[in-house]
Amino acid sequence: MPDTLPVAQYLFKRLRQLGVDSIFGVPGDYNLTLLDHVVPSGLKWVGNCNELNAGYAADGYSRIKGLGAVVTTFGVGELSAVNAIAGAYAERAPVVHIVGTPPRASQESRAKIHHTFNDGDYRRFDAMQEHVTVGQARLHHQRTATSAIDEILVQCLVHGRPVRIAIPVDMVGVTVSAAGLAGGIQIPLAVQQPHEDAVLGSVVERMYCSKKPMILVDGETRVLDVVEEVHQLIRCTGWPTFTSGFGKGLVDETLPNVYGVCSHLQKPFLELCDLVLVLGPHFSNTNTYNYLLRPQDEKSILFGAEGPDSIQVLNDVHQDLPVKHFLQQLVQRLDASKVPAHQHDLVHPAVEIKALPDISPMDPVTQTAGFWKRLSPFFRPGDIILAETGTPGYGANEFILPPHSRLFKPVTWLSIGYMLPAALGASHAQRDLVARNKCHSLSNPRTILFIGDGSFQMTVQELSTIIHQRLNVIVFLINNDGYTIERCIHGRNQAYNDVARWQYLKAPEFFNADRDGEHRAHTWQIRTWADFDLVLKDPYLIDGKGLRMVEVVMERFDAPDVLLGLLQAQIQREKVHI
Amino acid sequence: MPDTLPVAQYLFKRLRQLGVDSIFGVPGDYNLTLLDHVVPSGLKWVGNCNELNAGYAADGYSRIKGLGAVVTTFGVGELSAVNAIAGAYAERAPVVHIVGTPPRASQESRAKIHHTFNDGDYRRFDAMQEHVTVGQARLHHQRTATSAIDEILVQCLVHGRPVRIAIPVDMVGVTVSAAGLAGGIQIPLAVQQPHEDAVLGSVVERMYCSKKPMILVDGETRVLDVVEEVHQLIRCTGWPTFTSGFGKGLVDETLPNVYGVCSHLQKPFLELCDLVLVLGPHFSNTNTYNYLLRPQDEKSILFGAEGPDSIQVLNDVHQDLPVKHFLQQLVQRLDASKVPAHQHDLVHPAVEIKALPDISPMDPVTQTAGFWKRLSPFFRPGDIILAETGTPGYGANEFILPPHSRLFKPVTWLSIGYMLPAALGASHAQRDLVARNKCHSLSNPRTILFIGDGSFQMTVQELSTIIHQRLNVIVFLINNDGYTIERCIHGRNQAYNDVARWQYLKAPEFFNADRDGEHRAHTWQIRTWADFDLVLKDPYLIDGKGLRMVEVVMERFDAPDVLLGLLQAQIQREKVHI
Repeated sequence: MPDTLPVAQYLFKRLRQLGVDSIFGVPGDYNLTLLDHVVPSGLKWVGNCNELNAGYAADGYSRIKGLGAVVTTFGVGELSAVNAIAGAYAERAPVVHIVGTPPRASQESRAKIHHTFNDGDYRRFDAMQEHVTVGQARLHHQRTATSAIDEILVQCLVHGRPVRIAIPVDMVGVTVSAAGLAGGIQIPLAVQQPHEDAVLGSVVERMYCSKKPMILVDGETRVLDVVEEVHQLIRCTGWPTFTSGFGKGLVDETLPNVYGVCSHLQKPFLELCDLVLVLGPHFSNTNTYNYLLRPQDEKSILFGAEGPDSIQVLNDVHQDLPVKHFLQQLVQRLDASKVPAHQHDLVHPAVEIKALPDISPMDPVTQTAGFWKRLSPFFRPGDIILAETGTPGYGANEFILPPHSRLFKPVTWLSIGYMLPAALGASHAQRDLVARNKCHSLSNPRTILFIGDGSFQMTVQELSTIIHQRLNVIVFLINNDGYTIERCIHGRNQAYNDVARWQYLKAPEFFNADRDGEHRAHTWQIRTWADFDLVLKDPYLIDGKGLRMVEVVMERFDAPDVLLGLLQAQIQREKVHI
Repeated sequence: MPDTLPVAQYLFKRLRQLGVDSIFGVPGDYNLTLLDHVVPSGLKWVGNCNELNAGYAADGYSRIKGLGAVVTTFGVGELSAVNAIAGAYAERAPVVHIVGTPPRASQESRAKIHHTFNDGDYRRFDAMQEHVTVGQARLHHQRTATSAIDEILVQCLVHGRPVRIAIPVDMVGVTVSAAGLAGGIQIPLAVQQPHEDAVLGSVVERMYCSKKPMILVDGETRVLDVVEEVHQLIRCTGWPTFTSGFGKGLVDETLPNVYGVCSHLQKPFLELCDLVLVLGPHFSNTNTYNYLLRPQDEKSILFGAEGPDSIQVLNDVHQDLPVKHFLQQLVQRLDASKVPAHQHDLVHPAVEIKALPDISPMDPVTQTAGFWKRLSPFFRPGDIILAETGTPGYGANEFILPPHSRLFKPVTWLSIGYMLPAALGASHAQRDLVARNKCHSLSNPRTILFIGDGSFQMTVQELSTIIHQRLNVIVFLINNDGYTIERCIHGRNQAYNDVARWQYLKAPEFFNADRDGEHRAHTWQIRTWADFDLVLKDPYLIDGKGLRMVEVVMERFDAPDVLLGLLQAQIQREKVHI
């Protein structure tokens, strides 16, 4: 390690230490010299087609690897990415947004230059990005640059939310001390608080005296970094366990007491429970079936109720108790013999799937006849599965996931177009994990995307990056002729819910995928159950490399039950109005 | 006209009165009921593939028709569009950004719902959008809704900058009085100011006593709405007239005293002038060849120096003098016999083009051998020509434009990816003008886009909208294998300046263009000057309908002179470092 190095390399090497192996972004004239330092710092550069997609990709990467990064240019680039950064903020994905900014002299003299509003005001974009980031650093000073970088990265990791680092062109090469790199970043450890013991005691007591307890694993469990501790809790209690949509994929669904997503169908069971342990709660309307699944405070213990250091026991919120540390104490303290069992008659989803009725091979594939449920056998350990907002997002609740798999589902931000670039990012993370030998000994795990036609059109160009990076990605394109989710909500026959009809399976050719060799792109079309069976057994699909794309043609108003309920309500409203 | 109507229709009908015939956007669950009112209000709905593209399209529309509008949904939609709105702010395009927001009750109760940060804070997006809009209206109150709409539209028109109108779902159908619609919106007229006469006098005096005067038409002339007055000034003085890059296309270049874009080559001439009348100045670095063309204050008169109501004479800025009114007075007051003539030896660009050297038909087409100059005969009256940031943006300076044509060039915001959706918007505006019989008796004028491969990839999906709206658009895709403009600036051989190679001419097939009939898409490829001659004479290209696409294959480092200068400087720097 040299004694000094350029600021840019300090930043990039720090990211590498923290597990970032690939970085996303788009070049622009205020970040070109910055990009010169990416590869020399040991990172891989992944150029995206546009900045929104780059932001989404970094988000996807971070949800798999624990940290992601994206580089854009001042103004035009960073604003194009802002919606992705906002989504990462809303759903707690730790993304470092690095923005190449104009030289300090231009900023200080208020020069009227391009990528500004020609008014000398250089702080507007800082101000806008503050709303979507948990911390901001402007690297304008040589002596404070490295400490500013370290501090902001800690913020990013502790809160699991995006930060923005603005680096002026003329700071990129400024020499700084490399000393800080030797030690790695210290994430502040939990400090034992005087009230911790009492809170622990009350949680244990509450657990011991419950009669009908359950566990609900929600999605902020990921960023609390307590997936392992939660599994210990699930195993040690044996209590019936559900996930929210956001939490799905964080828990091993092959465990006998894990029952999949807690949907409106479980409402009666939930009502009967007298204690609900909620891990990483995220109680938005879309993640709780319109609050239907939010347990009453009086019978809940929330781990991470108001951020990563808070525990809510019944109505009391206890702050300054880092959840990971708290859970470790809790699992240690629990006496298995005192943990009550909960007698119930829940049926494990795996049993339900075996009981699916037969279907006629020549019938069209429909969601109502079990398209989503019947996909489960296709998944295998290590798969990353992404289901875009729309019918796939609801459908994915019905998947039964194998161990070591992960799922991305719409949660709260619900920005359609997110999932395709997120699949690019997640797949890169998957590949980087394999390279670091941290992927459960799997050598070539798959990333599988389910996406509707409307969403696909939003960010389609990133398929090109998936192709040219030779990633192992399977795309199921649900072609149901427009925004079916919106048709269910309102305007079922309105033209504004239509999208142009594309020849979707021509995409690999347009984006110039290999036409031969092992990364040759393969495409299929599914219309009937016979097609479904045939395609899902095709070894090129199952074990191929590079992009594989399956167009599933479905009827406009075919959707999961929840959406069909909205559609029926809409039809009822129309009748009233007539 | 009914006595009352829903708020949404008041808004849309008002837009229609102001010349908006087509409105762009993307549906989302907080704007669906709003969209129900688009067609009943007499507007055409143009659904885009994503919100950034929709914003760009509305910007393009507004620059042709004087006002544009885009509809997005709360949070995800509006943030995706924010970079387009920022560009409209920077370059003064009056765009009305209408955002469908959650019901008032959700907002007031701070409900944790989707498209928020799950924290009950509903004002963040308002705060972010304030930075990129000249006015904001939140339509939360029935009694003030119509006056708020009217006021905000006046702001938009007077300043030529975007405004944001947020309309909660439950306000869409609220009944309001239609009375205001009867009168139309009154843009405040100029009020005679006591100092106007003195300022007019000093301007006239300065003009009479100049020896070497010139006129520089800059781009804010468009939004000052003084194109007609400027032509009177050009004709009545006979003075040598140039445009900036931003101003190009606003002035009839067939006039004998109009000499095209004032580039660095005109610096010596500019130096010799003792008076420069600048109309609609916009002195950013990129619009002035790095301030080279910004005339000294001591010899300038700036019309619109600091907004639409300011006149700068030498060093003094006079406020509250609306430029349009001032120019009308000025032209009236000028005594042609007292206006001095300026003897000079400028050569009209039309003469230069005729003197272009012969080229060998089998030579590859290059920018250095006059690709841009040689295109001029292809253009015809009424064409809208768009040249994207990159080599086309510089190349377009060399076009000689026919009367009634318009040009979009990179100015200050320089957000690559803008021009393709802007072409969609401009072409729609062109079609709407024809329908209103306001397009100089032209029946089917063309929109012609020049765009590099890197920019094309950014927003490619909007080609689908161009195709399916059957717009008369010609795309020249400059395929020079990556970000050539960035290669010229820095990192000429760096991988981050590469883009994936696509089969660009497969785009119409992928996007499902007609394969027969009058709107069948046509494609061509140009590699040599022989191809160039053949393709540009093809009647399908010249007079076809629908999308025509020409791929022009060029060498990586082929660029206009200005960029080649940067490239040479880069090579020199590298030598010094070795």
